[in-house]
Amino acid sequence: MPNKQKIINDPIYGFITIPSELVFDIIEHPYFQRLRRIKQLGLTAYVYPGALHTRFHHALGAMHLMVTCIDTLRSKGTEISTEEAEGAIIAILLHDIGHGPFSHALESVIVKDVDHEEISLLFMNKLNEVFEGKLNLAIQIFQNKYHKNFLHQLVSSQLDMDRLDYLKRDSFFTGVSEGIINSDRIISMLRVANDTLAVEAKGIYSIEKFIIARRLMYWQVYLHKTVLCAENMLVKILKRAKYLVKNGVDLPSTPPFNFFLKNEISRQMFFDDSKIAEVFSRLDDYDIFTSIKMWQWSDDKVLNLLCNNLVDRKLLHIEISNKAFDGDKQGIINKRVQEKLNLTEEEASYFVISDSVSNNAYKPGQDKINLLYRDGTMIDIADAADQLNISVLSNTVEKFFMCYPKECAVKD
Amino acid sequence: MPNKQKIINDPIYGFITIPSELVFDIIEHPYFQRLRRIKQLGLTAYVYPGALHTRFHHALGAMHLMVTCIDTLRSKGTEISTEEAEGAIIAILLHDIGHGPFSHALESVIVKDVDHEEISLLFMNKLNEVFEGKLNLAIQIFQNKYHKNFLHQLVSSQLDMDRLDYLKRDSFFTGVSEGIINSDRIISMLRVANDTLAVEAKGIYSIEKFIIARRLMYWQVYLHKTVLCAENMLVKILKRAKYLVKNGVDLPSTPPFNFFLKNEISRQMFFDDSKIAEVFSRLDDYDIFTSIKMWQWSDDKVLNLLCNNLVDRKLLHIEISNKAFDGDKQGIINKRVQEKLNLTEEEASYFVISDSVSNNAYKPGQDKINLLYRDGTMIDIADAADQLNISVLSNTVEKFFMCYPKECAVKD
Amino acid sequence: MPNKQKIINDPIYGFITIPSELVFDIIEHPYFQRLRRIKQLGLTAYVYPGALHTRFHHALGAMHLMVTCIDTLRSKGTEISTEEAEGAIIAILLHDIGHGPFSHALESVIVKDVDHEEISLLFMNKLNEVFEGKLNLAIQIFQNKYHKNFLHQLVSSQLDMDRLDYLKRDSFFTGVSEGIINSDRIISMLRVANDTLAVEAKGIYSIEKFIIARRLMYWQVYLHKTVLCAENMLVKILKRAKYLVKNGVDLPSTPPFNFFLKNEISRQMFFDDSKIAEVFSRLDDYDIFTSIKMWQWSDDKVLNLLCNNLVDRKLLHIEISNKAFDGDKQGIINKRVQEKLNLTEEEASYFVISDSVSNNAYKPGQDKINLLYRDGTMIDIADAADQLNISVLSNTVEKFFMCYPKECAVKD
Amino acid sequence: MPNKQKIINDPIYGFITIPSELVFDIIEHPYFQRLRRIKQLGLTAYVYPGALHTRFHHALGAMHLMVTCIDTLRSKGTEISTEEAEGAIIAILLHDIGHGPFSHALESVIVKDVDHEEISLLFMNKLNEVFEGKLNLAIQIFQNKYHKNFLHQLVSSQLDMDRLDYLKRDSFFTGVSEGIINSDRIISMLRVANDTLAVEAKGIYSIEKFIIARRLMYWQVYLHKTVLCAENMLVKILKRAKYLVKNGVDLPSTPPFNFFLKNEISRQMFFDDSKIAEVFSRLDDYDIFTSIKMWQWSDDKVLNLLCNNLVDRKLLHIEISNKAFDGDKQGIINKRVQEKLNLTEEEASYFVISDSVSNNAYKPGQDKINLLYRDGTMIDIADAADQLNISVLSNTVEKFFMCYPKECAVKD
Repeated sequence: MPNKQKIINDPIYGFITIPSELVFDIIEHPYFQRLRRIKQLGLTAYVYPGALHTRFHHALGAMHLMVTCIDTLRSKGTEISTEEAEGAIIAILLHDIGHGPFSHALESVIVKDVDHEEISLLFMNKLNEVFEGKLNLAIQIFQNKYHKNFLHQLVSSQLDMDRLDYLKRDSFFTGVSEGIINSDRIISMLRVANDTLAVEAKGIYSIEKFIIARRLMYWQVYLHKTVLCAENMLVKILKRAKYLVKNGVDLPSTPPFNFFLKNEISRQMFFDDSKIAEVFSRLDDYDIFTSIKMWQWSDDKVLNLLCNNLVDRKLLHIEISNKAFDGDKQGIINKRVQEKLNLTEEEASYFVISDSVSNNAYKPGQDKINLLYRDGTMIDIADAADQLNISVLSNTVEKFFMCYPKECAVKD
Repeated sequence: MPNKQKIINDPIYGFITIPSELVFDIIEHPYFQRLRRIKQLGLTAYVYPGALHTRFHHALGAMHLMVTCIDTLRSKGTEISTEEAEGAIIAILLHDIGHGPFSHALESVIVKDVDHEEISLLFMNKLNEVFEGKLNLAIQIFQNKYHKNFLHQLVSSQLDMDRLDYLKRDSFFTGVSEGIINSDRIISMLRVANDTLAVEAKGIYSIEKFIIARRLMYWQVYLHKTVLCAENMLVKILKRAKYLVKNGVDLPSTPPFNFFLKNEISRQMFFDDSKIAEVFSRLDDYDIFTSIKMWQWSDDKVLNLLCNNLVDRKLLHIEISNKAFDGDKQGIINKRVQEKLNLTEEEASYFVISDSVSNNAYKPGQDKINLLYRDGTMIDIADAADQLNISVLSNTVEKFFMCYPKECAVKD
Repeated sequence: MPNKQKIINDPIYGFITIPSELVFDIIEHPYFQRLRRIKQLGLTAYVYPGALHTRFHHALGAMHLMVTCIDTLRSKGTEISTEEAEGAIIAILLHDIGHGPFSHALESVIVKDVDHEEISLLFMNKLNEVFEGKLNLAIQIFQNKYHKNFLHQLVSSQLDMDRLDYLKRDSFFTGVSEGIINSDRIISMLRVANDTLAVEAKGIYSIEKFIIARRLMYWQVYLHKTVLCAENMLVKILKRAKYLVKNGVDLPSTPPFNFFLKNEISRQMFFDDSKIAEVFSRLDDYDIFTSIKMWQWSDDKVLNLLCNNLVDRKLLHIEISNKAFDGDKQGIINKRVQEKLNLTEEEASYFVISDSVSNNAYKPGQDKINLLYRDGTMIDIADAADQLNISVLSNTVEKFFMCYPKECAVKD
Repeated sequence: MPNKQKIINDPIYGFITIPSELVFDIIEHPYFQRLRRIKQLGLTAYVYPGALHTRFHHALGAMHLMVTCIDTLRSKGTEISTEEAEGAIIAILLHDIGHGPFSHALESVIVKDVDHEEISLLFMNKLNEVFEGKLNLAIQIFQNKYHKNFLHQLVSSQLDMDRLDYLKRDSFFTGVSEGIINSDRIISMLRVANDTLAVEAKGIYSIEKFIIARRLMYWQVYLHKTVLCAENMLVKILKRAKYLVKNGVDLPSTPPFNFFLKNEISRQMFFDDSKIAEVFSRLDDYDIFTSIKMWQWSDDKVLNLLCNNLVDRKLLHIEISNKAFDGDKQGIINKRVQEKLNLTEEEASYFVISDSVSNNAYKPGQDKINLLYRDGTMIDIADAADQLNISVLSNTVEKFFMCYPKECAVKD
């Protein structure tokens, strides 16, 4: 690969080597470069200031693990051709290419009912045109249409390279060191039997710890109450902006963001009209956050206040609980907000958020993690003797939260 | 503290500062220096070649955590006087001073029915004489006779500084990185309420992970099958040596080891005759392992073979199982050993080991880990909502193993 | 400090504790929060994708080291009052508060002849008003007007907490692990004699390594050729934008950035008109990069091309050399650019950059690093026997570079 | 490789994979297993308690780097056959197999004028017999008799895999983190030109830092004054023991150690009589230290005192200086020792040690580190422009030291 930079520094793995010229060219493409401008964890840096890493960096990391993993599986006798390897590598590299900025917050505002995996597929198809069909196999693997099932499992399952990298990367950059998993060891224990991915039985404690680490990251980072609060404020900002634009208010914003604020895009339109995806491909964290910065001077009191608060990190107060909040509480607080901030009930509703989040650390059944014994038996890890606690971890944990201006709190 | 080295390099914490002159002098004492010659993990380096760290290093590490922890608790308003602080620091520093070499393997051979905590207390009392009563408070705390109960809990409980350091240190030096716990974070979440140590409720996931890490270390390191095998071979060597000495064979060994081989020491004698403890204080890894090296030339075939095998790391084969082995199996293998090695049944029994190990990751009840809620409620972590899996981890897991010469294996 | 978050997670130090309520309130102020939106290393992430850390994070890190350092110096007998400690802590916390986005690139475009330290001082004075004079001592220390000279040296010298943190942080996030310095050890070797900061003589090798690490970071990261190229492209973009605006072209940009594009601000004006600093305090990476994103659709060919190239990371080719380039070369390449891109000579000049960079790893004399011997002698480290190589490192190294479109290269 | 353990945990590299069955069998051989019982850094743990790692562990680490390095060189187009790779791997694995316990201290006492590399070769030849000639190529490479010169350079030169591993490993286990080098990056910059090993020119700063790290490790660890003192006490102990044995005193010691104490072995005898090497192959840290422990009860006052002091870490006082000590000083101190300890002049001389140590960080000329430019030029790194400081580092630094009982110190 003459004259093409082949090695990228990574604080986690040391070096990431780009495995082929095609992969290099895909990385160079503007669709992929866009991921440099989309943070992996959105507003999480408001709690963990180091959490500024991007989807670009994560995609490279997951690619690196895929390369390592393929080497390992080959050394254990699993046949994987050069083409299959490149297919799996490209599939993991592009698995998140359809993510928009502040993904969870925006999805309800920008394009409803389209999940980012579908958009990833859309962009993979566009890139396949650019690269003249060289992504065919990657797309088959991504869609689980390729006969060697385990290649898809490496891209998407409860033990895929995506998860191994993001858990490690997110804990690294947040500094929540308990989330750090040993991806090397987990990969060294993978094996393929009957075209299915499995973990060697002796790896059971590592997997258990991986699941616990994931659970910890959920409650400590992804669903951290301050992060939840900031993200919900962002959702409210976007809703208010959309509402104002719909009512004819002229809000300053960047061209691609403006497009999505002005137009109500249906799922159908998104996949039919290729121009829309093109606009989407221009959208990143800069568009959203810069627009919010500009709205700090909006004439609309609600938008103005929410944007100033978010930019200066003056967040709403958040209460979190294992039980649902009393139905009246939200109403009472809304009343107080109306009084204190001199707002209508409808306006006040932007400052009183009540919702819940839930998570289960492991989902048995589909996508399960298989344990492979020396005698060839393969079972779902949740069913392994001695692992009662994994089955327990399959239970869904739900938590309720309410956000509101601190000065409007009510005593229980 | 003029002219006294005050800072020790530690690959784990960076620097360990010796907090006072008295502590410095205790560390300098030969009783404590002896711990430099006792590996924390005995024969574990046969599996993890980095695991050569000593009880000396661990004691310093636990002392360091105690210093940090006391600072933290004070910053949260718990009053701890200078004397109490030094007492707790000395108590943790000396908590393992009674350990002999290859502790678990030797305890049945050297002094029966005396556990190392009693011997630690014995040495603490001896040091208290040397230092003219300055260890009084440390001893009270160690024995849980001091009214501020939490000080003892820092020295000895399921969340004591001992555990925090050894888990971290053992995973560091073995390279089993999944066992690494975040001692800083755990300590930062400790709090004292009603003179009792507790973890702030938000720390629940960290504690959960701490328990899982401990469980993983048990099965991956402390009870690793190859380690089990080597330790059991060591036990057999010691038994054989003792048997031979009792029958008048003159085995070369170092003077302190020789003393314990020649004499049957009862619990009573150990605590009554202060000379015995003095001999014990001379005994370390060097005595045991060098004697075994010398026994490689013994005329006794059993001892000769076992010692050669252990020194050259030609270990017996070990089988491990969740179920007890068939009662006949041991007998059949013994027969084979008799034939292959030309031994009597009794001699052959040294090469066929059958036993079990068990562990429970968390023990509710006594010594429990308390969770402290904002409203002041304190509960056992195993009873916390959302932590069903901790209660599950309280179940005892038992595994059965059998060791024998590989060439004498039988098909099941 | 009730109800105020006191601990911040940091992947480098583990935890950063906010030492006082005043410091907490300063951190909460929008001036300081703005630093969350200014990357420490500008466009360096184009080479090292992890290098997204902000001036916010660095300021907290330097504050953390200051706290540690003050503890150390006190433990060695240097008297530092609570007020002095807080003064030094606030001085280091705010030492970079005057930095604008993409500092080096923008300084020539936004406000000429004003260096960021002067702006930092301006903001410190503004904050001092807000906090009713509580920053007086911090400002004195920052300006080196306080009699205990060493406090200023901790804030600004060749061994200040600023450098210790940024070298460590930059090497951490870039993954250039050779740059990692042992800040703990260096701090542990600091000492104050005659109100002057010095390193204990035994620390000489650590300091030597610190200087070499800094030198390595310069050439490997700060002056990495690809980073140089991207930054120089950014400078050209800003120059072109300013030129166009001056000529009446209406370029979309954010309000604060627009202000600086439209107005030529002199040094005098900046310090006289407090509104200007207020606008400056609104400016961050988002303003600059989002405007560049919008200029991708500019009608001006030069701006359009440069912006598209920068956003999509299609950088100019860069040549680097220890000798100055032949004077004709730039002219010849400019001609080629005119032809290939169909531009005028003046327009082409935006695509042909020729300049040099220089660095000396250590500067003897003012700001020097002092070595303190046991007998009380203090000398400049460059003069220490056995350290000939440090004096050698004082030599300035200069390198020349030229950037241009790859297809316009000329053979030498 | 069925039924052979292939992966070893290492806290530094994560996992070390054993690359072939032959290598596995060599590692299993008692000659190699002996290295488990020889600490890499002798008595250094008296200063850095973590420094207990063994020559066994280091040899595996160096082997691991060799595997990585061969992969890298192959990926850059250098042809290395499977046999050559295995040869180089075995050569590095066994490069230190001839080391005895406490190498530097013992060499003058045990076998004079034989350096450990010659003994390594002797053992390699013995192993070559055991493995029926399969080590031929390894031995050729080790002796630099194989035509591909760079393979020998990887085993033995100023940038060999030995150094890369030991610097990294020693700094890791001591906790002297400034010594940590980035072996991955250095290896990634290696290249072969004209069968000679070279570093790509861009790697110059990494090499500079590597040399500085080595220099730091010398003065901070290998020649640390307390380590020097302990090692010199050990030398004195061995000299006294040898003297006593020669004079007919019956000292207890282990059989192999006893052999070397009793017999004066010449270089000739060592290589002629294969039984001597066999005895040597039984000798390890346990023999030496256990014998010293036993000599704590010796009737000889000198031996008794020195051994008690070394075992209990009551070390002599050591003074270190850049200048040679005044000739009279040693005599005056010796007199004091005679008085205080009631010894003859000759006996007192065991307690007054005067010597010097020297080190040069880089040696130009033979074994030099080559820098390879893009145009194919290759130069000694000490001659590279901009690297004046490396040439400065070639100067030899010498330091003088004197050890004696603290109470016998004289004022200068």
